[in-house]
Amino acid sequence: MKRYSIGVDFGSLSGRAVLVDLDTGIEAATSVFEYPHKIMDTELPTGEKLPLDFALQHPRDYLDVLSYVIPDILRKSQIQAEQVIGVGIDFTSCTMLPVLKDGTPLCFLGQYKNRPHSYVKLWKHHAAQKEAEKINEIAEKMGEKWLSRYGGKISSEWFIPKIWQILNEDEVIYNNADRFVEATDWIIWQLTGRETHAACSAGYKAIWHKKDGYPNKKFFKALDTRMENIIGTKISAEIIPMGEKAGEINQFAAELTGLKEGTAVAVGNVDAHVALPAVGIVDSGKMLMIIGTSTCHIVMGDEEREVPGKCGVVEDGVVKGYFGYEAGQSCVGDHFDWFVKNCVPADYRSEGISIHKILREKAKKLKPGESGLLALDFWNGNRSVLVDANLSGMMLGMTLQTKPEEIYRVLIEATAYGTKIIIDTFEENGIPINELYAAGGIAEKDELMMQIYADVTNREIKISGSPQTPALGSAMFGAVAGGYFADLAQCAKVLSKVRDVSYKPIAENVKIYQKIYEEYKTLYYYFGKENNVMKRLKGIKEDVR
Amino acid sequence: MKRYSIGVDFGSLSGRAVLVDLDTGIEAATSVFEYPHKIMDTELPTGEKLPLDFALQHPRDYLDVLSYVIPDILRKSQIQAEQVIGVGIDFTSCTMLPVLKDGTPLCFLGQYKNRPHSYVKLWKHHAAQKEAEKINEIAEKMGEKWLSRYGGKISSEWFIPKIWQILNEDEVIYNNADRFVEATDWIIWQLTGRETHAACSAGYKAIWHKKDGYPNKKFFKALDTRMENIIGTKISAEIIPMGEKAGEINQFAAELTGLKEGTAVAVGNVDAHVALPAVGIVDSGKMLMIIGTSTCHIVMGDEEREVPGKCGVVEDGVVKGYFGYEAGQSCVGDHFDWFVKNCVPADYRSEGISIHKILREKAKKLKPGESGLLALDFWNGNRSVLVDANLSGMMLGMTLQTKPEEIYRVLIEATAYGTKIIIDTFEENGIPINELYAAGGIAEKDELMMQIYADVTNREIKISGSPQTPALGSAMFGAVAGGYFADLAQCAKVLSKVRDVSYKPIAENVKIYQKIYEEYKTLYYYFGKENNVMKRLKGIKEDVR
Repeated sequence: MKRYSIGVDFGSLSGRAVLVDLDTGIEAATSVFEYPHKIMDTELPTGEKLPLDFALQHPRDYLDVLSYVIPDILRKSQIQAEQVIGVGIDFTSCTMLPVLKDGTPLCFLGQYKNRPHSYVKLWKHHAAQKEAEKINEIAEKMGEKWLSRYGGKISSEWFIPKIWQILNEDEVIYNNADRFVEATDWIIWQLTGRETHAACSAGYKAIWHKKDGYPNKKFFKALDTRMENIIGTKISAEIIPMGEKAGEINQFAAELTGLKEGTAVAVGNVDAHVALPAVGIVDSGKMLMIIGTSTCHIVMGDEEREVPGKCGVVEDGVVKGYFGYEAGQSCVGDHFDWFVKNCVPADYRSEGISIHKILREKAKKLKPGESGLLALDFWNGNRSVLVDANLSGMMLGMTLQTKPEEIYRVLIEATAYGTKIIIDTFEENGIPINELYAAGGIAEKDELMMQIYADVTNREIKISGSPQTPALGSAMFGAVAGGYFADLAQCAKVLSKVRDVSYKPIAENVKIYQKIYEEYKTLYYYFGKENNVMKRLKGIKEDVR
Repeated sequence: MKRYSIGVDFGSLSGRAVLVDLDTGIEAATSVFEYPHKIMDTELPTGEKLPLDFALQHPRDYLDVLSYVIPDILRKSQIQAEQVIGVGIDFTSCTMLPVLKDGTPLCFLGQYKNRPHSYVKLWKHHAAQKEAEKINEIAEKMGEKWLSRYGGKISSEWFIPKIWQILNEDEVIYNNADRFVEATDWIIWQLTGRETHAACSAGYKAIWHKKDGYPNKKFFKALDTRMENIIGTKISAEIIPMGEKAGEINQFAAELTGLKEGTAVAVGNVDAHVALPAVGIVDSGKMLMIIGTSTCHIVMGDEEREVPGKCGVVEDGVVKGYFGYEAGQSCVGDHFDWFVKNCVPADYRSEGISIHKILREKAKKLKPGESGLLALDFWNGNRSVLVDANLSGMMLGMTLQTKPEEIYRVLIEATAYGTKIIIDTFEENGIPINELYAAGGIAEKDELMMQIYADVTNREIKISGSPQTPALGSAMFGAVAGGYFADLAQCAKVLSKVRDVSYKPIAENVKIYQKIYEEYKTLYYYFGKENNVMKRLKGIKEDVR
């Protein structure tokens, strides 16, 4: 009897599952389910209006994913549930929600459904910026040594700022939440009945450290006396290492998914981190870029170093025995979508052809530097190296001859420079990047963009061989949890995939991009540090609204 | 028998005439004719490709204007040619062309029609930037005192750089040109058979001064030994004061236009300067903004002062007895057109409604500062205060929520800040601006823009009462040339027009715009002086192409 593992990857807009044959690595079936409530950034399902920078989700959508995609792949592949020996899941992070003792989300309860803070805060919920800034300020004043692990700043996207925002804006929800949990842990709770707090998201997003634990009570008290005892009460202090088995499918989950009770479930992972083994990265010096609406950069090192603007470093956070470093860009695919939705003239469109495709075709004909344009990729703030959600986009060089395809190309280039500044910052701080890999929808489809990335970074780029990289990674963790392989390295030898063809830098393009990159870097720090005009304009905007 | 005067205004894309009743000021008829060859910026009529930044025109189009619009207004008004006692014309400037001794444009000759430099260089031809920079450098080194009259820099749009470009790039045309003439003077030549060189364009665009004359031979020799004796040979040294009669309609012109031989023709004017009397400005302290594809700002002062970035100051250049100061913005209406052509999504468009109107309606609903955006209006370089055609556009503050109408509004605001920095610079340098007037298509039609201008400048703005302000001004000069009024001041009392309703600043808007203007100013000088990234990117662009 053939054996299989299932990986389920929860993204920003949908959940997708893959069923993997554990002897051949063949992906026997896949399935996608889009969240019915999408991202709620203007109003709740009840019509309640949302303030600026909110980005919420409905946890019911995640259960709908499980009840659709798992039966769907079993049906498509015509295998028996018994043949599935493990399940792994991964989620965008930090995506978090308040729940009761039994795991029930507060937004499921009638009395809270009108209260925005009872819902899931998606990773890109940016309304806790004030709290993040206060945390950074207090931590710096108190000399908290964990601050440097996160590049000197924690982000408004993370766990503690989001919780503090709930306390500041809706104490009722804060008081009635028995736990605040990462969505990935919440899914594992639903599947197994066991509450876990996985090391990966705890380490990268909740300021947990293998040796030092969480920040101490004194720190939390300094934030707000009501938060003094939050660790061990509203935040689970029991951290489960990555790669372990979290538990087994229980009766509720068996009914929801059609899997057998007792099937092994791996500890919940984060979408980016889970992808490294899927492309075969199981040791240090190899960076993976997961390129989608945003980009996450992960590389393992042999020791813990300080790197400005890294989002975090977690021991055993990706593969046991290594220090997993994370960095990120908060606006990549979103960037191009914004442009296409808001700034492309009617006569560029053609029935039945994607406007992205039309623009890429036109942009492909341009040479590097030919447009005279330069942009800073801050449309959704800056995660690494600056860690500042209040930054905004900048473009210059426009003339009356500037064409949409030139702007489209420069938005791509901006994200490539953003990646280069991250790579350079790692290397300048003692974490070598010897190989570069890319995964995610855009990396797999967009040849123009990947060539620009190779030219800007002056590095060969290898592309993931699976169209469902994180889901494949999750399935690998599921297979290890189910005991089919001795460890992740063994599993990766059989199941990981990269494409045969890679992108290689073109010397004459590299030369031009190096010059423009110097300009990018100057403006990056000018608007990031020296002239806070973007933040002052955001202040005016908030005052006026 | 009623008496009339005709004014013909030559713009960037068309020529338009107005017939004015000299007793009532009523505009009895108007007519427009669009240049068949438009602006030639990619190729000549012969298919010959044009280099970057060229903007040429065909002088045949100007004769077509005369032969269409004058007969048209005579026919429409059903008056006799005898009733027309004077004609005035005005032109965009510096718009210039090489001609033979008899006034024949070199591009009319078969042997030159393939050579770009034989055609008219429109004001916005920016390909003589190299020459302008060299002129500024040499003039500074030689301590030429005229340099400060032009704000310390002369522009690539002007007469001498354009001539020097011809010499540098096509010596055949240079050698075979008997004269280089302003288009306004060329039209007068066609109408009267007399070559004139009007004080207004000579003073503002050709470095002529009432007391000091042109730069001396030593200077021209320093540019190029072949130019040493250019004054008095290829450039007429005989300057005619504004407001004089240039001559009378000759046989050729009578046949072309249907006017009577002997009708008085005023000295050729410049479109912006001719407009001041049309709104009743005949003394100092009142600034007129002529707002179209670009904006020209003119104000008269009682003495000659140095003002950074002013385009020029000419004694008697507008009205006798005053010093006419000019400043300018090279990208205003062009700015909005670029945006609408290149950056507006299909779903914003609606059959039969101008997209400008749709965007203005949406933009009108926004409050100042609400978008968080800020732009520098450098899409077509910067004329005043920086005098640098190599600058390019900049916009910042974009987020993933930014909408087209927000961008549209911020492009308007950018041009308003550009105007404010010009006004402030005049006042800081001793030229008071007590009243503000606006004319031109945009000023007359766009309420949103004019209110933004009132709010940004914190001044009341009076709007020209004629839809054909420069043409009306030209007709006024024609009437004075024809002897119907004692002088321009008398004439203005009868014929000048402003609207009854003006735009007044709204206090709460003023407050917000003052804050944003401070940000604009910082970035204006940062990109204008401190960080030359725009120019380096333009350099790369030129290398790559």
